[in-house]
Amino acid sequence: MRKPILEILSHEEQRLLLDLLFTQQYALELVRCEIADIENGDKQVDAKRYQQLLRLYDRLLQET
Amino acid sequence: MRKPILEILSHEEQRLLLDLLFTQQYALELVRCEIADIENGDKQVDAKRYQQLLRLYDRLLQET
Repeated sequence: MRKPILEILSHEEQRLLLDLLFTQQYALELVRCEIADIENGDKQVDAKRYQQLLRLYDRLLQET
Repeated sequence: MRKPILEILSHEEQRLLLDLLFTQQYALELVRCEIADIENGDKQVDAKRYQQLLRLYDRLLQET
């Protein structure tokens, strides 16, 4: 995780990025790729984060 | 803009998405694409948003 850059951005900049993510309809793909990397063993994350990702994926699938 | 989905997500879910955006190093590309769409005339935005995007792009370029 590269926390520093996230901390540096203002709330408005973070909102702008999230907004682009949805207007470009890339949010679901972003989460799907991450889950695939984890399940392929290309990326190591703890169980909590994996569960968060699965939950977020389901939410996005329902909402978008 | 598709505000509703952003409003529906929890703060934690929004953070998770932003974190993925940076770990997958896609943030700069996301903003770059949006600016290109605007400059090609494929997308219409107001001047304020265009300025915000240019500023965010410069920030990300410096910070990432």
